[in-house]
Amino acid sequence: MAHLGTGIEYALHCLLWIAQPLPKPPSSRELAALQGAPAPFVAKIFGKLEKAGLVDASAGIRGGYRLARAPEDITVLDVVDAVEGRKNLFDCQNVRSRCALYEGQPPDWSAGSVCGIHAVMIRAEQAMRDELGRATLGTLAAGLARKAPPEFDAQARRWLAARSGTRDDARVAALKQRKRFP
Amino acid sequence: MAHLGTGIEYALHCLLWIAQPLPKPPSSRELAALQGAPAPFVAKIFGKLEKAGLVDASAGIRGGYRLARAPEDITVLDVVDAVEGRKNLFDCQNVRSRCALYEGQPPDWSAGSVCGIHAVMIRAEQAMRDELGRATLGTLAAGLARKAPPEFDAQARRWLAARSGTRDDARVAALKQRKRFP
Repeated sequence: MAHLGTGIEYALHCLLWIAQPLPKPPSSRELAALQGAPAPFVAKIFGKLEKAGLVDASAGIRGGYRLARAPEDITVLDVVDAVEGRKNLFDCQNVRSRCALYEGQPPDWSAGSVCGIHAVMIRAEQAMRDELGRATLGTLAAGLARKAPPEFDAQARRWLAARSGTRDDARVAALKQRKRFP
Repeated sequence: MAHLGTGIEYALHCLLWIAQPLPKPPSSRELAALQGAPAPFVAKIFGKLEKAGLVDASAGIRGGYRLARAPEDITVLDVVDAVEGRKNLFDCQNVRSRCALYEGQPPDWSAGSVCGIHAVMIRAEQAMRDELGRATLGTLAAGLARKAPPEFDAQARRWLAARSGTRDDARVAALKQRKRFP
Protein backbone atom coordinates (compact mmCIF):
# COMPACT_ATOMS: atom_id res chain seq x y z
CA MET A 1 0.00 0.00 0.00
CA ALA A 2 1.22 3.49 -0.78
CA HIS A 3 1.68 6.26 1.78
CA LEU A 4 -1.14 8.31 0.24
CA GLY A 5 -4.55 6.81 -0.52
CA THR A 6 -6.83 6.90 -3.57
CA GLY A 7 -8.89 9.66 -1.93
CA ILE A 8 -6.20 12.14 -3.00
CA GLU A 9 -6.48 11.06 -6.63
CA TYR A 10 -10.29 11.35 -6.65
CA ALA A 11 -10.11 14.69 -4.84
CA LEU A 12 -7.65 16.21 -7.32
CA HIS A 13 -9.49 14.93 -10.40
CA CYS A 14 -12.84 16.24 -9.11
CA LEU A 15 -11.30 19.58 -8.10
CA LEU A 16 -9.87 19.98 -11.60
CA TRP A 17 -13.40 19.85 -12.99
CA ILE A 18 -14.46 22.79 -10.84
CA ALA A 19 -11.21 24.68 -11.48
CA GLN A 20 -12.75 25.80 -14.78
CA PRO A 21 -15.57 28.38 -14.92
CA LEU A 22 -18.93 26.58 -14.80
CA PRO A 23 -22.39 28.11 -15.19
CA LYS A 24 -23.59 26.21 -12.09
CA PRO A 25 -21.65 24.59 -9.22
CA PRO A 26 -21.93 20.79 -9.52
CA SER A 27 -22.85 18.58 -6.59
CA SER A 28 -20.39 15.99 -5.29
CA ARG A 29 -22.70 13.34 -6.76
CA GLU A 30 -22.41 14.89 -10.23
CA LEU A 31 -18.63 15.18 -9.93
CA ALA A 32 -18.47 11.55 -8.82
CA ALA A 33 -20.52 10.47 -11.83
CA LEU A 34 -18.42 12.57 -14.23
CA GLN A 35 -15.25 11.09 -12.74
CA GLY A 36 -16.61 7.53 -12.55
CA ALA A 37 -16.03 7.50 -8.79
CA PRO A 38 -18.15 6.09 -5.91
CA ALA A 39 -20.55 8.89 -4.87
CA PRO A 40 -20.41 8.35 -1.06
CA PHE A 41 -16.58 8.37 -1.15
CA VAL A 42 -16.54 11.64 -3.12
CA ALA A 43 -19.17 13.17 -0.80
CA LYS A 44 -16.93 12.37 2.20
CA ILE A 45 -13.89 13.83 0.44
CA PHE A 46 -15.75 17.05 -0.37
CA GLY A 47 -16.79 17.31 3.28
CA LYS A 48 -13.08 17.32 4.17
CA LEU A 49 -12.17 19.78 1.41
CA GLU A 50 -14.90 22.14 2.64
CA LYS A 51 -13.72 21.83 6.25
CA ALA A 52 -10.19 22.72 5.10
CA GLY A 53 -11.53 25.82 3.34
CA LEU A 54 -10.60 24.66 -0.16
CA VAL A 55 -14.17 24.53 -1.52
CA ASP A 56 -17.39 26.35 -0.70
CA ALA A 57 -20.72 24.57 -0.76
CA SER A 58 -23.88 26.43 -1.70
CA ALA A 59 -27.17 24.94 -0.54
CA GLY A 60 -30.49 24.59 -2.29
CA ILE A 61 -31.72 23.05 -5.54
CA ARG A 62 -29.03 24.88 -7.49
CA GLY A 63 -26.40 24.25 -4.84
CA GLY A 64 -23.05 22.60 -5.36
CA TYR A 65 -19.32 23.05 -4.92
CA ARG A 66 -17.02 25.87 -6.05
CA LEU A 67 -13.35 26.39 -5.32
CA ALA A 68 -12.97 28.70 -2.34
CA ARG A 69 -9.76 30.19 -3.80
CA ALA A 70 -8.27 30.63 -7.25
CA PRO A 71 -6.87 27.35 -8.72
CA GLU A 72 -3.37 28.89 -8.50
CA ASP A 73 -3.82 29.29 -4.74
CA ILE A 74 -4.72 25.67 -4.00
CA THR A 75 -1.67 23.42 -3.91
CA VAL A 76 -1.53 19.64 -4.15
CA LEU A 77 -0.16 19.78 -0.59
CA ASP A 78 -3.31 21.62 0.57
CA VAL A 79 -5.42 18.82 -0.90
CA VAL A 80 -3.22 16.04 0.55
CA ASP A 81 -3.37 17.59 4.05
CA ALA A 82 -7.14 18.18 3.74
CA VAL A 83 -7.95 14.63 2.66
CA GLU A 84 -5.42 12.62 4.68
CA GLY A 85 -4.93 15.00 7.59
CA ARG A 86 -1.51 16.51 8.34
CA LYS A 87 0.61 13.40 8.71
CA ASN A 88 4.30 13.41 9.59
CA LEU A 89 6.73 11.28 7.63
CA PHE A 90 8.12 10.08 10.95
CA ASP A 91 7.13 10.51 14.59
CA CYS A 92 10.34 10.51 16.62
CA GLN A 93 9.66 8.36 19.71
CA ASN A 94 12.90 9.58 21.25
CA VAL A 95 14.17 6.00 21.30
CA ARG A 96 17.68 7.32 22.03
CA SER A 97 16.63 8.39 25.54
CA ARG A 98 16.12 4.69 26.43
CA CYS A 99 19.76 3.80 25.87
CA ALA A 100 20.88 1.51 28.72
CA LEU A 101 24.09 3.54 29.17
CA TYR A 102 22.04 6.54 30.35
CA GLU A 103 20.51 4.51 33.20
CA GLY A 104 17.22 6.41 32.91
CA GLN A 105 18.85 9.84 32.85
CA PRO A 106 19.69 10.95 29.29
CA PRO A 107 22.60 13.41 29.46
CA ASP A 108 22.21 16.96 28.19
CA TRP A 109 24.39 16.38 25.14
CA SER A 110 21.82 13.81 23.95
CA ALA A 111 18.51 15.14 25.25
CA GLY A 112 19.21 18.79 24.51
CA SER A 113 19.31 18.58 20.71
CA VAL A 114 17.26 17.20 17.82
CA CYS A 115 18.14 13.54 17.21
CA GLY A 116 20.26 13.21 14.04
CA ILE A 117 17.85 10.58 12.68
CA HIS A 118 14.85 12.82 13.27
CA ALA A 119 16.67 15.69 11.55
CA VAL A 120 17.13 13.57 8.39
CA MET A 121 13.43 12.64 8.43
CA ILE A 122 12.40 16.28 8.85
CA ARG A 123 14.54 17.27 5.85
CA ALA A 124 13.08 14.44 3.73
CA GLU A 125 9.53 15.35 4.71
CA GLN A 126 10.16 19.00 3.93
CA ALA A 127 11.57 18.13 0.49
CA MET A 128 8.43 16.11 -0.26
CA ARG A 129 6.09 18.83 1.04
CA ASP A 130 7.97 21.53 -0.90
CA GLU A 131 7.44 19.56 -4.12
CA LEU A 132 3.74 18.97 -3.36
CA GLY A 133 3.38 22.65 -2.50
CA ARG A 134 4.88 23.75 -5.80
CA ALA A 135 2.08 22.16 -7.87
CA THR A 136 -1.32 23.83 -7.79
CA LEU A 137 -4.72 23.11 -9.33
CA GLY A 138 -3.74 25.92 -11.72
CA THR A 139 -0.55 24.20 -12.91
CA LEU A 140 -2.33 20.83 -13.15
CA ALA A 141 -5.19 22.37 -15.15
CA ALA A 142 -2.72 24.08 -17.47
CA GLY A 143 -0.94 20.76 -18.04
CA LEU A 144 -4.24 19.09 -18.83
CA ALA A 145 -5.24 21.91 -21.19
CA ARG A 146 -1.99 21.43 -23.12
CA LYS A 147 -2.88 17.78 -23.74
CA ALA A 148 -6.68 17.81 -24.13
CA PRO A 149 -8.39 18.84 -27.39
CA PRO A 150 -9.87 22.38 -27.32
CA GLU A 151 -13.47 21.12 -27.14
CA PHE A 152 -12.86 18.98 -24.02
CA ASP A 153 -13.80 21.63 -21.44
CA ALA A 154 -16.97 22.55 -23.31
CA GLN A 155 -17.88 18.88 -23.52
CA ALA A 156 -17.52 18.56 -19.72
CA ARG A 157 -19.64 21.69 -19.20
CA ARG A 158 -22.40 20.29 -21.44
CA TRP A 159 -22.27 16.94 -19.61
CA LEU A 160 -22.59 18.66 -16.22
CA ALA A 161 -25.36 20.97 -17.45
CA ALA A 162 -27.36 18.03 -18.80
CA ARG A 163 -26.83 16.07 -15.58
CA SER A 164 -27.72 18.95 -13.32
CA GLY A 165 -30.79 19.71 -15.50
CA THR A 166 -32.01 16.18 -14.84
CA ARG A 167 -31.27 16.62 -11.14
CA ASP A 168 -33.16 19.91 -10.96
CA ASP A 169 -36.17 18.49 -12.81
CA ALA A 170 -36.24 15.52 -10.44
CA ARG A 171 -35.96 17.75 -7.37
CA VAL A 172 -38.64 20.20 -8.57
CA ALA A 173 -40.93 17.26 -9.35
CA ALA A 174 -40.27 15.85 -5.87
CA LEU A 175 -41.06 19.21 -4.25
CA LYS A 176 -44.31 19.55 -6.22
CA GLN A 177 -45.20 16.01 -5.23
CA ARG A 178 -44.56 16.84 -1.58
CA LYS A 179 -46.84 19.93 -1.81
CA ARG A 180 -49.62 17.86 -3.33
CA PHE A 181 -49.41 15.18 -0.61
CA PRO A 182 -48.22 16.96 2.46
CA MET B 1 0.15 7.92 12.71
CA ALA B 2 3.22 8.81 10.70
CA HIS B 3 4.05 7.41 7.27
CA LEU B 4 7.11 5.59 8.66
CA GLY B 5 6.91 3.39 11.75
CA THR B 6 9.02 3.14 14.91
CA GLY B 7 10.84 0.14 13.41
CA ILE B 8 12.96 2.57 11.39
CA GLU B 9 14.02 4.44 14.51
CA TYR B 10 14.99 1.25 16.36
CA ALA B 11 16.78 -0.06 13.27
CA LEU B 12 18.87 3.07 12.82
CA HIS B 13 19.78 3.38 16.49
CA CYS B 14 20.83 -0.28 16.69
CA LEU B 15 22.77 -0.05 13.42
CA LEU B 16 24.67 2.96 14.77
CA TRP B 17 25.98 0.78 17.62
CA ILE B 18 27.48 -1.69 15.15
CA ALA B 19 28.77 1.07 12.86
CA GLN B 20 31.72 1.39 15.25
CA PRO B 21 34.47 -1.26 15.43
CA LEU B 22 33.55 -3.84 18.08
CA PRO B 23 35.67 -6.71 19.34
CA LYS B 24 32.70 -9.09 18.93
CA PRO B 25 29.49 -8.78 16.90
CA PRO B 26 26.56 -8.29 19.30
CA SER B 27 23.33 -10.30 19.02
CA SER B 28 20.05 -8.56 18.26
CA ARG B 29 19.06 -9.28 21.88
CA GLU B 30 22.13 -7.42 23.17
CA LEU B 31 21.50 -4.50 20.84
CA ALA B 32 17.86 -4.41 21.97
CA ALA B 33 18.95 -4.33 25.62
CA LEU B 34 21.53 -1.62 24.96
CA GLN B 35 18.93 0.45 23.13
CA GLY B 36 16.14 -0.24 25.63
CA ALA B 37 14.01 -1.77 22.87
CA PRO B 38 11.74 -4.86 22.86
CA ALA B 39 13.97 -7.84 21.92
CA PRO B 40 11.49 -9.69 19.62
CA PHE B 41 10.83 -6.48 17.67
CA VAL B 42 14.56 -5.86 17.18
CA ALA B 43 15.11 -9.53 16.19
CA LYS B 44 12.44 -9.17 13.48
CA ILE B 45 14.00 -5.91 12.25
CA PHE B 46 17.45 -7.52 12.03
CA GLY B 47 15.95 -10.37 10.01
CA LYS B 48 14.78 -7.78 7.48
CA LEU B 49 18.10 -5.92 7.51
CA GLU B 50 19.93 -9.19 6.85
CA LYS B 51 17.54 -10.10 4.01
CA ALA B 52 18.22 -6.69 2.46
CA GLY B 53 21.97 -7.33 2.64
CA LEU B 54 22.68 -4.50 5.09
CA VAL B 55 23.96 -6.71 7.91
CA ASP B 56 25.66 -10.11 8.09
CA ALA B 57 24.85 -12.57 10.84
CA SER B 58 27.48 -14.95 12.12
CA ALA B 59 26.26 -18.08 13.88
CA GLY B 60 27.53 -19.83 16.98
CA ILE B 61 28.18 -18.88 20.57
CA ARG B 62 30.23 -15.90 19.47
CA GLY B 63 27.77 -15.04 16.68
CA GLY B 64 26.06 -11.72 16.16
CA TYR B 65 25.52 -8.94 13.66
CA ARG B 66 27.99 -6.85 11.69
CA LEU B 67 27.34 -4.27 9.00
CA ALA B 68 27.63 -5.91 5.58
CA ARG B 69 29.03 -2.69 4.08
CA ALA B 70 30.92 0.35 5.32
CA PRO B 71 28.71 2.78 7.31
CA GLU B 72 29.20 5.35 4.52
CA ASP B 73 27.62 2.90 2.05
CA ILE B 74 24.41 2.30 4.00
CA THR B 75 21.92 5.11 3.54
CA VAL B 76 18.89 5.92 5.66
CA LEU B 77 16.87 5.13 2.52
CA ASP B 78 18.39 1.61 2.41
CA VAL B 79 17.24 1.08 6.00
CA VAL B 80 13.76 2.53 5.39
CA ASP B 81 13.22 0.30 2.34
CA ALA B 82 14.59 -2.76 4.18
CA VAL B 83 12.38 -2.32 7.23
CA GLU B 84 9.17 -0.99 5.67
CA GLY B 85 9.49 -2.50 2.20
CA ARG B 86 9.73 -0.30 -0.89
CA LYS B 87 6.54 1.72 -0.58
CA ASN B 88 5.40 4.30 -3.11
CA LEU B 89 4.20 7.70 -1.94
CA PHE B 90 1.19 7.26 -4.21
CA ASP B 91 -0.17 4.41 -6.33
CA CYS B 92 -1.85 5.95 -9.37
CA GLN B 93 -5.12 4.08 -9.88
CA ASN B 94 -5.53 5.75 -13.25
CA VAL B 95 -8.77 7.30 -12.03
CA ARG B 96 -8.72 9.62 -15.06
CA SER B 97 -9.50 6.68 -17.39
CA ARG B 98 -12.91 6.33 -15.73
CA CYS B 99 -14.07 9.81 -16.81
CA ALA B 100 -17.68 9.53 -18.05
CA LEU B 101 -16.85 11.65 -21.11
CA TYR B 102 -14.57 8.88 -22.43
CA GLU B 103 -17.45 6.36 -22.42
CA GLY B 104 -15.11 3.50 -21.53
CA GLN B 105 -12.51 4.37 -24.17
CA PRO B 106 -9.91 6.82 -22.86
CA PRO B 107 -8.51 8.79 -25.81
CA ASP B 108 -4.82 8.59 -26.69
CA TRP B 109 -4.11 12.14 -25.50
CA SER B 110 -5.15 11.05 -22.00
CA ALA B 111 -4.09 7.40 -21.85
CA GLY B 112 -0.80 7.85 -23.67
CA SER B 113 1.00 10.00 -21.10
CA VAL B 114 1.75 10.08 -17.38
CA CYS B 115 -1.14 11.67 -15.47
CA GLY B 116 -0.16 15.17 -14.32
CA ILE B 117 -1.16 14.30 -10.75
CA HIS B 118 0.97 11.17 -10.76
CA ALA B 119 3.91 13.17 -12.13
CA VAL B 120 3.73 15.57 -9.14
CA MET B 121 3.63 12.62 -6.73
CA ILE B 122 6.64 10.99 -8.42
CA ARG B 123 8.63 14.23 -8.09
CA ALA B 124 7.65 14.58 -4.41
CA GLU B 125 8.58 10.98 -3.69
CA GLN B 126 11.89 11.37 -5.46
CA ALA B 127 12.70 14.52 -3.47
CA MET B 128 12.01 12.62 -0.25
CA ARG B 129 14.05 9.58 -1.33
CA ASP B 130 16.94 11.78 -2.48
CA GLU B 131 17.09 13.36 0.96
CA LEU B 132 16.92 9.97 2.74
CA GLY B 133 19.58 8.66 0.37
CA ARG B 134 21.95 11.51 1.18
CA ALA B 135 22.23 10.54 4.86
CA THR B 136 24.24 7.42 5.70
CA LEU B 137 25.10 5.55 8.87
CA GLY B 138 28.49 7.23 8.41
CA THR B 139 27.07 10.77 8.46
CA LEU B 140 24.74 9.91 11.37
CA ALA B 141 27.63 8.39 13.36
CA ALA B 142 29.79 11.43 12.67
CA GLY B 143 26.99 13.71 13.90
CA LEU B 144 26.66 11.64 17.07
CA ALA B 145 30.43 11.66 17.61
CA ARG B 146 30.42 15.47 17.46
CA LYS B 147 27.90 15.60 20.30
CA ALA B 148 28.84 12.66 22.52
CA PRO B 149 31.74 12.84 25.00
CA PRO B 150 34.91 11.05 23.82
CA GLU B 151 34.47 8.15 26.25
CA PHE B 152 30.94 7.30 25.06
CA ASP B 153 31.94 4.73 22.43
CA ALA B 154 34.32 2.96 24.80
CA GLN B 155 31.56 2.89 27.41
CA ALA B 156 29.23 1.18 24.90
CA ARG B 157 31.94 -1.32 23.98
CA ARG B 158 32.50 -2.19 27.66
CA TRP B 159 28.74 -2.57 28.20
CA LEU B 160 28.43 -4.91 25.20
CA ALA B 161 31.53 -6.90 26.20
CA ALA B 162 30.17 -7.39 29.74
CA ARG B 163 26.75 -8.39 28.39
CA SER B 164 28.12 -10.77 25.81
CA GLY B 165 30.47 -12.28 28.43
CA THR B 166 27.42 -13.08 30.54
CA ARG B 167 25.70 -14.51 27.48
CA ASP B 168 28.69 -16.70 26.59
CA ASP B 169 29.04 -17.98 30.15
CA ALA B 170 25.33 -18.87 30.20
CA ARG B 171 25.54 -20.64 26.85
CA VAL B 172 28.67 -22.56 27.71
CA ALA B 173 27.06 -23.60 30.99
CA ALA B 174 23.93 -24.70 29.12
CA LEU B 175 26.02 -26.71 26.65
CA LYS B 176 27.94 -28.40 29.46
CA GLN B 177 24.64 -29.15 31.18
CA ARG B 178 23.31 -30.71 27.96
CA LYS B 179 26.40 -32.90 27.62
CA ARG B 180 25.99 -34.10 31.15
CA PHE B 181 22.31 -35.00 30.67
CA PRO B 182 21.93 -35.90 27.02
